[in-house]
Amino acid sequence: MKIKYISGGICAPTGFSAAATHCGVRPNKKKNDIAIILSDTNADCVSAGLYTTNHVKAAPVQLDIETGRSGHCRAICVNSGIANACAPNGMKHAKEMQEAAAEALGLSPNEVLVGSTGIIGKELNIHRIREGIQVVSANLEHSEDASNEVARAILTTDTFKKELACRMNIGGKTITLGGISKGSGMVHPNMGTTLTYLTTDLAITATMLRQVLKEVCDVTFNRVSIDGEMSTNDSLIILANGLADNDIIDRECKELDQFKEALLDICTKFARMIAKDGEGAKHLVTCTVQGASDEEEAVTLAKSVIRSTLTKTAIFANDANWGRIMVAMGYSNISFNPEHVQIDFISESGQITVCRNGVGVEIDEDYASEILGEDEVTILITIDNGNASATCWGCDITYDYIKLNGSYRK
Amino acid sequence: MKIKYISGGICAPTGFSAAATHCGVRPNKKKNDIAIILSDTNADCVSAGLYTTNHVKAAPVQLDIETGRSGHCRAICVNSGIANACAPNGMKHAKEMQEAAAEALGLSPNEVLVGSTGIIGKELNIHRIREGIQVVSANLEHSEDASNEVARAILTTDTFKKELACRMNIGGKTITLGGISKGSGMVHPNMGTTLTYLTTDLAITATMLRQVLKEVCDVTFNRVSIDGEMSTNDSLIILANGLADNDIIDRECKELDQFKEALLDICTKFARMIAKDGEGAKHLVTCTVQGASDEEEAVTLAKSVIRSTLTKTAIFANDANWGRIMVAMGYSNISFNPEHVQIDFISESGQITVCRNGVGVEIDEDYASEILGEDEVTILITIDNGNASATCWGCDITYDYIKLNGSYRK
Repeated sequence: MKIKYISGGICAPTGFSAAATHCGVRPNKKKNDIAIILSDTNADCVSAGLYTTNHVKAAPVQLDIETGRSGHCRAICVNSGIANACAPNGMKHAKEMQEAAAEALGLSPNEVLVGSTGIIGKELNIHRIREGIQVVSANLEHSEDASNEVARAILTTDTFKKELACRMNIGGKTITLGGISKGSGMVHPNMGTTLTYLTTDLAITATMLRQVLKEVCDVTFNRVSIDGEMSTNDSLIILANGLADNDIIDRECKELDQFKEALLDICTKFARMIAKDGEGAKHLVTCTVQGASDEEEAVTLAKSVIRSTLTKTAIFANDANWGRIMVAMGYSNISFNPEHVQIDFISESGQITVCRNGVGVEIDEDYASEILGEDEVTILITIDNGNASATCWGCDITYDYIKLNGSYRK
Repeated sequence: MKIKYISGGICAPTGFSAAATHCGVRPNKKKNDIAIILSDTNADCVSAGLYTTNHVKAAPVQLDIETGRSGHCRAICVNSGIANACAPNGMKHAKEMQEAAAEALGLSPNEVLVGSTGIIGKELNIHRIREGIQVVSANLEHSEDASNEVARAILTTDTFKKELACRMNIGGKTITLGGISKGSGMVHPNMGTTLTYLTTDLAITATMLRQVLKEVCDVTFNRVSIDGEMSTNDSLIILANGLADNDIIDRECKELDQFKEALLDICTKFARMIAKDGEGAKHLVTCTVQGASDEEEAVTLAKSVIRSTLTKTAIFANDANWGRIMVAMGYSNISFNPEHVQIDFISESGQITVCRNGVGVEIDEDYASEILGEDEVTILITIDNGNASATCWGCDITYDYIKLNGSYRK
């Protein structure tokens, strides 16, 4: 199936409008901090969401898990600056935010999901949120610019906005899928993701939408680690309003597989963007493990390597210190024969085998540094347990990670 | 029982000699890189060891696990500079090192344990090791200076040597216990430890020595995390030669408890030293969790906090960003009521409650920064699951951690 990337972000699919503004939760007046995404009310919109598995969940996440159970939400109201997690009056404010958005949009609160991202433990300034909701609800637009503004509104320490849209043909109809996402710290597998909001004009049941979202999330967002931290606020939400007028997808079928293919494609791109924009990161690191006995084993090994702080410092320094990769594999609780391990580094500059049969290969260190000097580097690990493989994404750790996170609240 | 700290390190107990020199494994000629610790042959020395649980074990660790099984080793030969892990001819060289030391000391190879620390994946220059063994075996001394030299020989990125000795009265006899230890990266709980070598003139069976070492290691070295990494080479070894002439300890008894008390005391001091000297660290961070349902639960929570990179960056910046502590508790897989959590920061400058009933307390941020500005900071976490508590140790993460580990092989 051909997937064509287009502009327009979350407003690219038919029937989605959006707006964002600065309402004052964040001190910097140039930064948007409140936004709304809405499916037109003439459509029968369904929704699905996946949330952080952290035991400590922000109030908006707790509320969305309840609200989202119906699978019939059509709007998302989100703020940045304060996470509304472990915050005084957290649930009260999350509900007030939901109610204020619903009222402004002429919806029932049951149709509105809410999200927050930012500092944990601080009270949300609900008066500013209310004012912001008034402004954005009056300015909703079906435009590329509107999507842009919303994409900017959810950023925290991200250095670039993450916005994509793509188009494909499913069941004789043109289907559009759009999305926005944010990183860039507190990112680790086994959660929904960070904040990612997707929109599509596909006609699909809430049940099938949830199923396909879960399957795709497991192999994309759940395979990213920036810093081993898992946020209280991670949310991955998709709205599907059916305005593309395809025959509704209500079971396993070819059309579902096609939509899954597109969803996988866009979410893989977002996952890589999040890894690439990891706080302070200079390298996007892809780790592929092959020769595992099953996919789970490959994922466990790759995640252990991606998470390893010492491996991340070596990549930062363009240093082919592969011993640290062996160390991280060794403490992953996976059984493998160290004497049958091969490790390669790959980038645009070439490929080099640094470890064969579990021991060091004499290498040209300068060439290895050149390979590791590229922005995108792949660590290819081969073991001999079987035929399964998996890929995870991460980044290096730099002075800027420490600088950013040492001054985050200032 | 009174425990008095004295000078002399590993040579403080009766009948232990030591020596170290530079043999050329490390490029820097000012740094010792080969050392021997020996119990005099007139004594019936027993030994016990605990080793890394990393699936990838360095050759000397694999060899020591075999050799040490008898519980009757009396010498340790150790090099720094190269870890002899994932290295060409690793086991061959570990055995040659053991045999060379045995020959030079007039012992059977079965009586000699070996250790290595340094870069992973590089071949050990066994000729230099052999030459070094000749030099050190001819220069063994029962002196404080000798212990000093050996303490320096095992350091890698450590900024200060870790050497202690203490004296106590057990069963009417004066017992002396000495030790040396090293950090300072690749340190994480659930292993033996980094390299730590202990000597004592206590008379005890190998079985009881191993038992008490395991119990003490679990609550000291196994509760330290610098960077979440677990080395291939971690070894904790104790030699006990019986020259203090006490009635041999061969079962659970008051004398065993007394020795355990002293061992716990010295190993706690080493654990704190390792944490304090974590690579690039500016703060020793102690995390105590109280109100847990059992000790294991308290340890799991405390370790999750100590390991959290974002918590470490906050401590580095003297920033009371306790939300990150809640986050780390939340992904520890322990169940607790977030609404019943209290978090305090404590140091020489005072104590401040930053989170009560799971939400932020209005605090004087300057005072909080002052408390966190001290070299040694305690995070006190109170939950309401029960009455158990536990303490773990770690450190902050700084620019220097990244600098050190980016240039480690250069």
